[in-house]
Amino acid sequence: MSEARFSGVLAPVITPFKKDLCPDSERLASHCSWLIGQGAGLAVFGTNSEANSLSLNEKMNLLDSLVQDGIDAAAMMPGTGACALTDAVELTSHAVKLGCAGALMLPPFYYKGVSEDGLYAFYSEVIQRVGSDDLQIYLYHIPPISQISISLSLIDRLVKSYPDNIAGIKDSSGDWENTRALNEGGWADFRVFCGSESFLLQNMQHGGAGCISATANVNAKAIRELFDSWESPEAEKIQQELNRVRSLFQQFPMIPALKAATAHFAKDDEWRRVRPPIIEMGAEQREQLEAEMRAADFTMKDLGR
Amino acid sequence: MSEARFSGVLAPVITPFKKDLCPDSERLASHCSWLIGQGAGLAVFGTNSEANSLSLNEKMNLLDSLVQDGIDAAAMMPGTGACALTDAVELTSHAVKLGCAGALMLPPFYYKGVSEDGLYAFYSEVIQRVGSDDLQIYLYHIPPISQISISLSLIDRLVKSYPDNIAGIKDSSGDWENTRALNEGGWADFRVFCGSESFLLQNMQHGGAGCISATANVNAKAIRELFDSWESPEAEKIQQELNRVRSLFQQFPMIPALKAATAHFAKDDEWRRVRPPIIEMGAEQREQLEAEMRAADFTMKDLGR
Repeated sequence: MSEARFSGVLAPVITPFKKDLCPDSERLASHCSWLIGQGAGLAVFGTNSEANSLSLNEKMNLLDSLVQDGIDAAAMMPGTGACALTDAVELTSHAVKLGCAGALMLPPFYYKGVSEDGLYAFYSEVIQRVGSDDLQIYLYHIPPISQISISLSLIDRLVKSYPDNIAGIKDSSGDWENTRALNEGGWADFRVFCGSESFLLQNMQHGGAGCISATANVNAKAIRELFDSWESPEAEKIQQELNRVRSLFQQFPMIPALKAATAHFAKDDEWRRVRPPIIEMGAEQREQLEAEMRAADFTMKDLGR
Repeated sequence: MSEARFSGVLAPVITPFKKDLCPDSERLASHCSWLIGQGAGLAVFGTNSEANSLSLNEKMNLLDSLVQDGIDAAAMMPGTGACALTDAVELTSHAVKLGCAGALMLPPFYYKGVSEDGLYAFYSEVIQRVGSDDLQIYLYHIPPISQISISLSLIDRLVKSYPDNIAGIKDSSGDWENTRALNEGGWADFRVFCGSESFLLQNMQHGGAGCISATANVNAKAIRELFDSWESPEAEKIQQELNRVRSLFQQFPMIPALKAATAHFAKDDEWRRVRPPIIEMGAEQREQLEAEMRAADFTMKDLGR
């Protein structure tokens, strides 16, 4: 089981939309191929994928298309969490059947202040209903957005009940002390991913498995370089350079900025489109982003269809 | 159009589940019939319906069943909001086709801090895609749970763009000043429902349309009595009595308590079941609720299948 678990750098792959706002499976496959070439794994259907703006069927169809287009399911960790138990079960089962090596699972996020027992029951039902040893769940802790925390004690209960299925966590709390505590949890082969490459070096130094970060959509190769060489004397310098690029993007609304950058370097304006409630960047903001990228000598190499 | 708009007291109808946690359409129809008999309208798929714990198909099938079971679609204001545009469009279209007199629409609630432009674009897309003059949207403002506010300026833009489709709002902010401001919005025939009967008298005195309240599941007749007689000298006394019953239930987690009370008076333990992440009340807490109801001389009359 253990060698099947993920490590490395994954991108929550941005989702292209057609003019009618339907997902564009062709452009998605193309971006996935490029990301794999840059050394990244594919956390499709993450927060930065606008995954919660997609219906269950749209996500299942996109997964099917990606596999049909030759994207390796073993490189995929689709987001499969949902507010509705039945949605989470259906999408997770589908991902497992397609051979996805992991599933990144948000807790149900509508009701606030739910109990640990309630979250335990939710994950427990999903695992039992999916009913497969191939199911590798990476819990998704992103309290700034989901408003639902995945506590150390919840993880402990889940790992003890389902050691073969609970594979790790993505920590997007932005709180290094939490990431550190996760690495010190003492759970066998539990893979801790930080949700931003700005913690990547620290995470690796504390036994972490890598990172799953929005900006891996545009800067995967460099992030992967740090993952590969974190023990080298150059590591701190690479980390600083990653932070510089991340800061550039953080000046803008993240999803529209990732899409605008991709559109710019792919010379393909279609990439700019988002689904409401996210809003596309205006021309002025886009020019500002492009100016910042030029000034920083930032490019997305080899991009284009 | 105007006479089609809702007023009165609506219950966010609790959703019964079978042993396998599938929705129980038969018990739901039975509870809906009882509620109509008590003078309540049916805000099925509300927050207290565990609606966000149901899949799109489960909700569409339940609506079909209710109509087949003879529940009057004109009494229904199903919750049709969703994080995904395509889900919101599909469920809302379905509700309109079935003849539901309104749709109670949450904003997309995953992404936080979204712009007013983004929310406007979301509702706008839904309205244009549903494309029916019969669509009567009641916006659902419940920031404590959705974490997304529906501002006065957003309402103003929506009403101006879609005066025939934007019918009103449910204000579950718990902030009377906001409910008052909504009543003073000046929009033609805009129906303001408070999200708790504790504001019902005030809301009626300020031109409101009624309330949509969790506790209408168990206390609809009394709440309806206040709605019918808010101008009478007895109104303040009835309001006090409503507050007393609401306080009783507020001592407990609301959804499990509403279900436990229904199970108790219907002599039907099946009603107690909830879907994770909500957790059923334990025996001790249930006994405490039953003791409180006895002490308060509270009953749900004529309940039972």
